[in-house]
Amino acid sequence: MDYGVVRKVVGSVLKITAGLMLIPLCLSLFWREFSVSAAFMWSALITFAVGTALGASQADYKSIRIREALLIVTLVWISVSICGALPYLFAGAITTIPDALFESTSGFTTTGATVIDDVESLPRGILFWRSLTLWIGGMGILVLYLTVLPALGVSGQQIYKAELPGPVADKIAPKLADTARILYVVYGGMTAVLTILLMFGGLAFFDALQFAFATVSSGGFSIYNSSITKFNSNTFVLITISVFMILSGVNFSLYYDLRKRRFKSVFQNTELRLYGALLLLATAAVMLNLYQNVFESLFEAFKHALVQVSSIITTNGFASANFDQWPDFSKLILFFLMFTGASAGSTTGAIKLFRVVIAGKVIKREISQLFHPRAVIPVTMNGRMVSKETIRGVCAFLFLYLAVFAASTLILSLEGIGMASAASTSAAVLGNGGAGFGVVAPIHTYSQFSPAATLFLTFLMLLGRLELFTLIAIITPSYWKQ
Amino acid sequence: MDYGVVRKVVGSVLKITAGLMLIPLCLSLFWREFSVSAAFMWSALITFAVGTALGASQADYKSIRIREALLIVTLVWISVSICGALPYLFAGAITTIPDALFESTSGFTTTGATVIDDVESLPRGILFWRSLTLWIGGMGILVLYLTVLPALGVSGQQIYKAELPGPVADKIAPKLADTARILYVVYGGMTAVLTILLMFGGLAFFDALQFAFATVSSGGFSIYNSSITKFNSNTFVLITISVFMILSGVNFSLYYDLRKRRFKSVFQNTELRLYGALLLLATAAVMLNLYQNVFESLFEAFKHALVQVSSIITTNGFASANFDQWPDFSKLILFFLMFTGASAGSTTGAIKLFRVVIAGKVIKREISQLFHPRAVIPVTMNGRMVSKETIRGVCAFLFLYLAVFAASTLILSLEGIGMASAASTSAAVLGNGGAGFGVVAPIHTYSQFSPAATLFLTFLMLLGRLELFTLIAIITPSYWKQ
Repeated sequence: MDYGVVRKVVGSVLKITAGLMLIPLCLSLFWREFSVSAAFMWSALITFAVGTALGASQADYKSIRIREALLIVTLVWISVSICGALPYLFAGAITTIPDALFESTSGFTTTGATVIDDVESLPRGILFWRSLTLWIGGMGILVLYLTVLPALGVSGQQIYKAELPGPVADKIAPKLADTARILYVVYGGMTAVLTILLMFGGLAFFDALQFAFATVSSGGFSIYNSSITKFNSNTFVLITISVFMILSGVNFSLYYDLRKRRFKSVFQNTELRLYGALLLLATAAVMLNLYQNVFESLFEAFKHALVQVSSIITTNGFASANFDQWPDFSKLILFFLMFTGASAGSTTGAIKLFRVVIAGKVIKREISQLFHPRAVIPVTMNGRMVSKETIRGVCAFLFLYLAVFAASTLILSLEGIGMASAASTSAAVLGNGGAGFGVVAPIHTYSQFSPAATLFLTFLMLLGRLELFTLIAIITPSYWKQ
Repeated sequence: MDYGVVRKVVGSVLKITAGLMLIPLCLSLFWREFSVSAAFMWSALITFAVGTALGASQADYKSIRIREALLIVTLVWISVSICGALPYLFAGAITTIPDALFESTSGFTTTGATVIDDVESLPRGILFWRSLTLWIGGMGILVLYLTVLPALGVSGQQIYKAELPGPVADKIAPKLADTARILYVVYGGMTAVLTILLMFGGLAFFDALQFAFATVSSGGFSIYNSSITKFNSNTFVLITISVFMILSGVNFSLYYDLRKRRFKSVFQNTELRLYGALLLLATAAVMLNLYQNVFESLFEAFKHALVQVSSIITTNGFASANFDQWPDFSKLILFFLMFTGASAGSTTGAIKLFRVVIAGKVIKREISQLFHPRAVIPVTMNGRMVSKETIRGVCAFLFLYLAVFAASTLILSLEGIGMASAASTSAAVLGNGGAGFGVVAPIHTYSQFSPAATLFLTFLMLLGRLELFTLIAIITPSYWKQ
C-alpha cells in the first residue's frame, strides 16, 4: 500500500473543497450575513490546513493500484463529508455533530435527506452551501462512475471497461479528459439551462440556481420546508423539474455520444430503453391508480404521478404531494423504484437499471438452459456479449444490496418506527433517494432519529453511494494483509 | 414431446390418490359420518376414472426427457390438487370452487394456509383428509427434491447431480430406490415416533396422528381454530412439536447418511451448519426481544421464540401466539426467515438455505476477486467446488423469486389490505409457509380474499412448490416449439 499517494489525492480534494467554501463565504459577505461568512472562513481554513498537512508528501500517481484507489475513493467521500459539516456547526445551523455529519454526507452523496425541520429559517449562505454540496457531490459521482469504478471493476461496473491489469491511474487518466468534457458540457450546461427555465417560471435567480443544483445532481434538497409542493400551481416549473430529473437519470456518456452523432448507440442502449419503459409504465399505472382514488382531474393525477415517479426512480427525493397518503398500489410501485434507481453513469443512486437488465437476462437464460443443458448461452446487452466477470459482479452486488437492506431494516426497527417505516428508511437512505414512507414521508425530516441511528444512516448513505463493495472491501481483513 | 408417457404417469398418480381417498372413506364409515363417506366415494370414483382414462396409453418411461418431466411434475401437482378438492365440495365443508381448490392445493403443497374459519366444526373425515393431503404432499415433495429436480437441473438443484445428458428416467429410477428407503424409514418413522410422543403428551391417537402429519410435512394445518395455542400450557407437546419441525427442515438424505454412519458428511454439511446457526441466533434474538417487551418469564419468551422461529424457518406455519403483536424486531426476523426457508431435500419451502449459502459465497468471492482480478476463485460447499451451472441456477432462482414476490405483492395490494399485509401474504404463500402478518396473522384465515385473489394465491403456492422454473418453463413459448 502506497499511503503517500492516498494522502496526496485526499489532500488535493480537501484543498479544492476549501476553495469551494469561498463561494458561500463571499455570498454571505454580500448578503451581510457576517457570522455565517466567519463560519465559512474557519471551515475553509481548517479544511485547507488538513488538506495541506495530508498532501505534503511526494507521490507518484502511477502507484495507484486497486487497493490505493479503493481507499482514496472512500476517504475522499468521508473526509469531504466531515469537513463539509463544519459550516453547519460553526454557523449554529445544526447543533449536534451526528446531525451535521448526516446533513453534509446527505449532500455529498446526493441523498438529499435532511435533519433540519425549518430550512426556511436558515441563513442564505448555509442554504446555498447545502445545495452546493449536492452539486459537487453529483460531479464527484460522475467522475467516480465514468472513470474510477469501471477501471476498478467494482460489482459489475466493468461493463464499461476493456482490460484488467496494470495501474488504475493508467486507465483513469485518459478517460478523465472525456469525463471532464461531459461534465463541463452536459452537467454544467444542464444546470445553466434549468436555472434559466426556472427563472422563466417565475423563480428568483438564487432560488432557481439552488433548485437546479438539487435537480441535476438527483439530490433533492429543497430551500422550502415542503419540498416542491409550492410549485403545485405552477405547472411549467413542476414539469420542467420532472423533465430535468429524468434527464439526470440518463447515463451521461450517452449525451457525449449524442453530441458525437452516435445516434444508433444511444437508441439501442438497453438500459435507456428499460428506463424509458419503466418511466412510461410506472407513470401510467400510478396515474390511473390516483385518478381512481385520489384526484378528480386526470391531469392532476398525471402531474403528480410524473413528478413522483421521476423523483423516486432517479433517487432525487423531491415531493409534490405527501405520497405516503396514496393508495398502496402506487406506494408499492414507488417503493420498488427506490431499489431500481436509474442508469449507471448518472448522478442517481440505488441498484441502477443495467443490473436489473442483467438480472432479467440471467433468469431468461436459465429457462433456455433448462431445454439445452449443454449449450453455452450468452447474455447480451447493447448488442454485445456481457462478460462473465460482469455477470458475476452484478449478481454479487444484488445479493449484497438486498442483504444490507435487510440488515439495516432490522437495525432501524429497534428505533420503534414500525416495519414499513424501517424498510422504507433503509431503502431511501441506502439508495441515496432520501424520501420514503411512514416516518420519512415527505411531511417529516430525519431529525427524529437517535444520534446512534443518525450516524448509522450516515454510514448507509456512504455505503450506497460507494456501490457497497468499495467500502466493504476496505473493512475486510484480507484488504489489510500484505 | 411424448404425451403418452405424460398421461401414463399423471394417470397412475391419480389412481393412487383415489386409493388414498379410501382411508378417510373407511374412517368416516367407522365414525358413522355417512354423508362424508359418500363424498369420498364419489371423489375416489371420479379421480380413479380420470386416472384410468389418462393412463390407458402404452408408454415407455425411457422417453421421459426434460420437457416431459417438467410437464409431468406440474400436471401431477395440479391434477391431484383439483381431485383433492372434490371431497371438500361434495361434503359441503367448503362451498365455492376457488376456496376448495385453495384448501386442497394448500394441503398438497404443504402450505397449510386455510380458508376454513371454523375447522372445529368440520366432520372428522374431512379434517383427516386435510391432514393427510399435507402428509402425501410432503412425501411427493421429497421424491421431487431428492430425485426429479436434481436430475432436471432446475434452478441450482443440480448441486446433487453428477451428469447432465440422457433421458431423465435413467437418472431417476436408480435414485428412486434410495428415496423410497429414506421415505419409509425416516418420513414414516418420524411420523410414528411423533404420534407416540404426542400421545404421551396427552393427545388422543387421531389428534396426535394429524398433528404428526402436519409437523413432519412442514404443513401446519391444525385441527383446532387457534393453531397450536391450545398446547401453550403443555410444554412437553410444544417443545416436541418444535423439535420435529426442526427435524423436518433437515435434508432427508442426511438421515440416510447418518444411518450409513457417514457422520463426517453430516457434520461438515454447510447447509446444515447454517440451519443450526440461524435457528440458534434467531431464537436467541427473538427470545431476548420478547423478554424485554412481551413476556415476564425468560422461559416463556424462549418457548414462544423457539416455536415461532422453527415454525417460520421450516415454512410450517404453526403459531403458539399471535406473533403479529410482537415487536417489529422479532417480526422482521420472522419475515426474513419466511424467505430463507430450511434445507433442500426437506419438506420445507421458500428459497432454501443452500441457495443462501451460495449467494453469500458469491458476495465473498467478489470481494476477493477485487484484489485478484485475474484469479479463478472457486465457490465451495461441503468441501467441494460448486459448478458454475449450479451458481448460475441459484442466481437466476433468487432473482426470479424476488421478482415474483414483488409482482405478487403489487397484485395483492389491489385487495386493499395494506402494504405490509400484501408483502407478508405474498411471502407466506410463495414460500409455502402460510402464516404471516396483518390480514394473514395467526388469528385470521385466508377466507377473506376475493375469489380472484384466492385463485391467484393458489397459483402462487404451486409456483413456489415447483421451484418456480418448473412451472414458468412450461409457460414460455420456447417450451412448446418443436
